[in-house]
Amino acid sequence: MRTELCDKLGIEYPIIGFTPSEHVAAAISKAGGLGVLGCVRFNDAGELDTVLDWMDANTGGKPYGVDIVMPAKIPAEGTQVDLDKLIPEEHKAFVERTLRELGVPELPEDTVERAGVLGWLHSVARSHVEVALKHPIKLIANALGSPPVDVIEQAHSHGVPVAALAGKAEHARRHVDNGVDFVVAQGYEAGGHTGEIGSMVLLPEIVDAVGAPVLAAGGIGSGRQVAAALALGAAGAWTGSIWLGTEEYLRTMPSSEAMQRALVAATSADTVRTRIYTGKPARLLKTRWTEAWAQPGAPEPLPMPLQNLLVSHAHNRLHEANDPGLVSMPAGQIIGRIDRIRPVAEIFAELLAGYDEALERLEKSR
Amino acid sequence: MRTELCDKLGIEYPIIGFTPSEHVAAAISKAGGLGVLGCVRFNDAGELDTVLDWMDANTGGKPYGVDIVMPAKIPAEGTQVDLDKLIPEEHKAFVERTLRELGVPELPEDTVERAGVLGWLHSVARSHVEVALKHPIKLIANALGSPPVDVIEQAHSHGVPVAALAGKAEHARRHVDNGVDFVVAQGYEAGGHTGEIGSMVLLPEIVDAVGAPVLAAGGIGSGRQVAAALALGAAGAWTGSIWLGTEEYLRTMPSSEAMQRALVAATSADTVRTRIYTGKPARLLKTRWTEAWAQPGAPEPLPMPLQNLLVSHAHNRLHEANDPGLVSMPAGQIIGRIDRIRPVAEIFAELLAGYDEALERLEKSR
Repeated sequence: MRTELCDKLGIEYPIIGFTPSEHVAAAISKAGGLGVLGCVRFNDAGELDTVLDWMDANTGGKPYGVDIVMPAKIPAEGTQVDLDKLIPEEHKAFVERTLRELGVPELPEDTVERAGVLGWLHSVARSHVEVALKHPIKLIANALGSPPVDVIEQAHSHGVPVAALAGKAEHARRHVDNGVDFVVAQGYEAGGHTGEIGSMVLLPEIVDAVGAPVLAAGGIGSGRQVAAALALGAAGAWTGSIWLGTEEYLRTMPSSEAMQRALVAATSADTVRTRIYTGKPARLLKTRWTEAWAQPGAPEPLPMPLQNLLVSHAHNRLHEANDPGLVSMPAGQIIGRIDRIRPVAEIFAELLAGYDEALERLEKSR
Repeated sequence: MRTELCDKLGIEYPIIGFTPSEHVAAAISKAGGLGVLGCVRFNDAGELDTVLDWMDANTGGKPYGVDIVMPAKIPAEGTQVDLDKLIPEEHKAFVERTLRELGVPELPEDTVERAGVLGWLHSVARSHVEVALKHPIKLIANALGSPPVDVIEQAHSHGVPVAALAGKAEHARRHVDNGVDFVVAQGYEAGGHTGEIGSMVLLPEIVDAVGAPVLAAGGIGSGRQVAAALALGAAGAWTGSIWLGTEEYLRTMPSSEAMQRALVAATSADTVRTRIYTGKPARLLKTRWTEAWAQPGAPEPLPMPLQNLLVSHAHNRLHEANDPGLVSMPAGQIIGRIDRIRPVAEIFAELLAGYDEALERLEKSR
């Protein structure tokens, strides 16, 4: 399995693996793909710096990248305290009532709470870029489209290419006009922020719309799906959700056992596209928490970044509840394929073998 | 392009084309695929008989099939007059008000109105099967899952295999348990009745769930997409929406010019999955009519078959309005690819050429 992407990124196989876990990212890079570390969890850029030091020491010199979350439109800026004032009381009351009705326990009194995600404030995302460019990264991807032109130029001045997610051909065209090097065509099936056009339709549309290489995202978790993505014209595959079901993920986030149990139990029908996580449409694991927000009478989610601040305390309580039915987690439809927790290398080897099998099958059909 | 499906159906290429137009169906069969004629438009089985006589005379002896719409659960039966009584006044008032607000003209006084679609009543669908089995059909497909076991047995006793649409792996398994010969895995992208799981995820899931050959539906309109479908494990492609943009379609439905103009103008983002057409979720072209039903305050659509009876008069008026912005038409996301009205044979030739190109590209990546 080899495309132009391999030469451009210095990787063996055209498989990119997005993950918030440095242990997963390193394992993907060591397997011959490109591990891309999600930065949005680092409210403090110093923390990211430490983790990238760990990456530098643990990827055996193999290339890796980072993923930032920089919205095209600059959202409300400010400290968590300032922003909290913009959240309506009705919304706070709904969250409190819902947690009570779902039987989610209060946090123990001595808990030091994890703050809400601020990584999608431009100020914080820019600090991620600053820090990342001090490390030997091979890619900066932006999960919310094209970063500002000056950020792209900053990356290019360090010789680092930039990738941007797109859910429509017109967005992809705009990204490339801004100087983006790779477009990640993210289909409806994908976890996290995603649009409404399915991968089967979106991918060739974006391939035809832009001259830049296109990575296929959304619904990819097997070698057959990588083959389909390449048949549709992609230069490589962008994978994400399948890496949530790995041993390495649990090493970074040891308290994610309930989430992994939920993934193993879930079918491809057990996700939902909703604005309740960040304020923008994102696909999440369907749980009693997401269902509560879909009931008549539930408030409309707030815009980014307020919605996540609204639910950040709830996320902490849901996480502590340690109940697979109450997990709040971005995940794509491919999670229906996760039937046990495995090492990254095993999944990666299956992607390669499945790809070869698919191509052999196709060749027989000519 | 050749798979086991070709031998099973006696066709040259594993491409099935669903269409309500006999002219399109005949052209697909003559091009080497299998044209499948949608029967739901025939409230009178005698009309279907006449059209199938025409097919027998105009397919040059090439195989063709028919598509019926038989819900798994038997819907309310009755004449149109009986059923009309079950429709709430609130709904009738909304339809009337919406047509007025959209500026849709009344029908001329001497119009003989086309009745609502009754083809999905079991009684009518059974009459379609009776009539179709008197013709040399090679396939009966059911757009709403497995037909009743006795209908499958009736088809088999005439040597005719049965295909059934599925939007989930568990449904596919049930269809095959009932005796269905082929499963049509219909992804979220598809036009008409469709589920929520994208083709990229759904297709390999259904392939692995059943032993029967699987046809890929949803988002297929180019050879690259046929190659992707086969890479994902399909034995063939089930196409539909792309044939709406053909010269042959206009020959059967000469008053569909506004619809075709709407298709040519539409992008892949211009469809919506809604219950307003039949009562079950179906993907339609997004127009001012579908948008009106998405407004706050619009009533919830009624169950099948009442919803279509509710809107059948509106459909006639919308059709007569001859305005691309007011069309009511099932269509999949692939319509973004329709950029002009062409002959069936030209589209078919492109499917074959695009497939070969995709395979050549893939072979280079090994």
